[in-house]
Amino acid sequence: MTEPRYDVIAIGNAIVDVMAPCEESLIEELQLAKGGMSLLDADGARDLYKAMGPAKEISGGSAANTLAGLANLGAQCAFIGQVAKDQLGDVFTHDIRAAGIDFDTPARGGEPSTARCLIFVTPDGERTMNTFLGASQFLPPAALSEDAIRDAAVLYLEGYLWDPEEPRSAMRRAIEVARSAGRKVAFTASESFVIDRHGDDFRAMIDEGLIDILFVNHLELATLTGEDDFEAGVDALKDKVPTLVVTRSSDGAIAVSGAERVEVPAEPVDAVVDTTGAGDLFAAGFLSGHVKGESLQNCLTRGAVCAAEIISHYGARPEADLQALVAKRLG
Amino acid sequence: MTEPRYDVIAIGNAIVDVMAPCEESLIEELQLAKGGMSLLDADGARDLYKAMGPAKEISGGSAANTLAGLANLGAQCAFIGQVAKDQLGDVFTHDIRAAGIDFDTPARGGEPSTARCLIFVTPDGERTMNTFLGASQFLPPAALSEDAIRDAAVLYLEGYLWDPEEPRSAMRRAIEVARSAGRKVAFTASESFVIDRHGDDFRAMIDEGLIDILFVNHLELATLTGEDDFEAGVDALKDKVPTLVVTRSSDGAIAVSGAERVEVPAEPVDAVVDTTGAGDLFAAGFLSGHVKGESLQNCLTRGAVCAAEIISHYGARPEADLQALVAKRLG
Repeated sequence: MTEPRYDVIAIGNAIVDVMAPCEESLIEELQLAKGGMSLLDADGARDLYKAMGPAKEISGGSAANTLAGLANLGAQCAFIGQVAKDQLGDVFTHDIRAAGIDFDTPARGGEPSTARCLIFVTPDGERTMNTFLGASQFLPPAALSEDAIRDAAVLYLEGYLWDPEEPRSAMRRAIEVARSAGRKVAFTASESFVIDRHGDDFRAMIDEGLIDILFVNHLELATLTGEDDFEAGVDALKDKVPTLVVTRSSDGAIAVSGAERVEVPAEPVDAVVDTTGAGDLFAAGFLSGHVKGESLQNCLTRGAVCAAEIISHYGARPEADLQALVAKRLG
Repeated sequence: MTEPRYDVIAIGNAIVDVMAPCEESLIEELQLAKGGMSLLDADGARDLYKAMGPAKEISGGSAANTLAGLANLGAQCAFIGQVAKDQLGDVFTHDIRAAGIDFDTPARGGEPSTARCLIFVTPDGERTMNTFLGASQFLPPAALSEDAIRDAAVLYLEGYLWDPEEPRSAMRRAIEVARSAGRKVAFTASESFVIDRHGDDFRAMIDEGLIDILFVNHLELATLTGEDDFEAGVDALKDKVPTLVVTRSSDGAIAVSGAERVEVPAEPVDAVVDTTGAGDLFAAGFLSGHVKGESLQNCLTRGAVCAAEIISHYGARPEADLQALVAKRLG
């Protein structure tokens, strides 16, 4: 097997985040699911936008955020995702390419527009996401760069994108391509509601041994395994995936790989400004160590350092030099 | 004269800022005029965007930023400016309305698109602006809400918008409407290059007594008066406008009104993150005091407090509660 061109290639939603601070009372008034991610149709997005305060637009998308972290950490990355031919599509495309990530999926003409995620950030730093998936859900299997997938050490997939039909088919095909090329497949479950809808699919993929690295948070672990007890959840999954990574918000994270189990606490932060992208950047840090063959402990620490950086400012794309932060922490 | 509905109505460019940090070396490499504002055509904007790092989109426009500050300070405001029917136009419209500002200028169909300003922010916090004026320069006189202008205590005009022909005619008409209704006209010179091109116009308006409150910075003062010496510049203008406000960056600001002259130092800030909007928010603070009939000293201090807030974070729209900051400072 030749040395792959990319460290990580990811398939994910191509989203521009629309972020605004808000009081707790607005979350209640609008009956939003605080801390979660809900889907909106075009009318719902228009109505909710009206209820939002002055905002900032910052490129987002879970797997795209992870790649932005990985690229910042020096990894070679490529992204596959669907934008529309519009200004927000131009913004997403600019930002991901400017981060040094290859992105060649052709923009899609006509309606719907590029995906937007309306994110309300409360004073406690929690983010409440409301996504209009728009063009993102029409990623066709034909848009896959199969050569690029074969040429990446890791294929990283975002559970969010399992919901719409076309990208789900695209991801299934991508897994086949990666596995037959002897590459690793990493998967993030993304959100409990995705597991509610597609848990059987996810469990089948895990049982079939298609997932090499599985990222879940403690809530998704419970939903995926049906076990309310954290340790019981870990036990239910740890022998089914070569590497299991479970994040626990402010309680840090654990990873299990075969007989090895390691844990890290959350890294300290001065103030939690906005938790958007915490899991995405944890995955970035972890994978950046993994592709370098670092110890499981170091991979987790890298994840914690990157998550701490992203929650210290608005937006889910890194603003600091993550390589420098990691070097400072790991010495 | 009845109590006006608005404290301030402004006519200005309707711009979305595209902001990215950059090293000093990039400013040199791209041969940008550091600290200034340059105009771009569509091709120039596309090329420069490619050279920019990952960015954030935040609504901007000089007079619109001033109104956002004024509204944050509790003033009743209305904005007149031209966006296109596109996503960035929706963003601008959303943000200004969400700030509590009335904005009813109909969006313009077809090309060009909504104005964008590509802003490079160097590690010293200085901003280098490159503007594609797009739809903004096609604000027609017919778009003026003359009733709203008659119903505002102050008409605030942005020198930047004097450059394109249609808005210049619109502003001339707006001045006539405001003056015949007995309202005050405030004017910001905006940038030395505007004075280079339209200084004769500006001087004629000042000589004719059409401007009640004039905002300039020390560089614009020199360009407008032809006096390199600061005091000579002040002397040349102070008897021609009822209120003259001159900002001097980190050296604070002065105001002269008739026989009264007051000065304030710049307010201290922990770190200058991004100077974009410093002058705009200084004007907001000053006008917020002026419309309440506060002392010249208090008006200047309000300006300094608002300028300090805006340079402590990215973007030219206020993020803190300016009323609380002003109350804390003035007691």
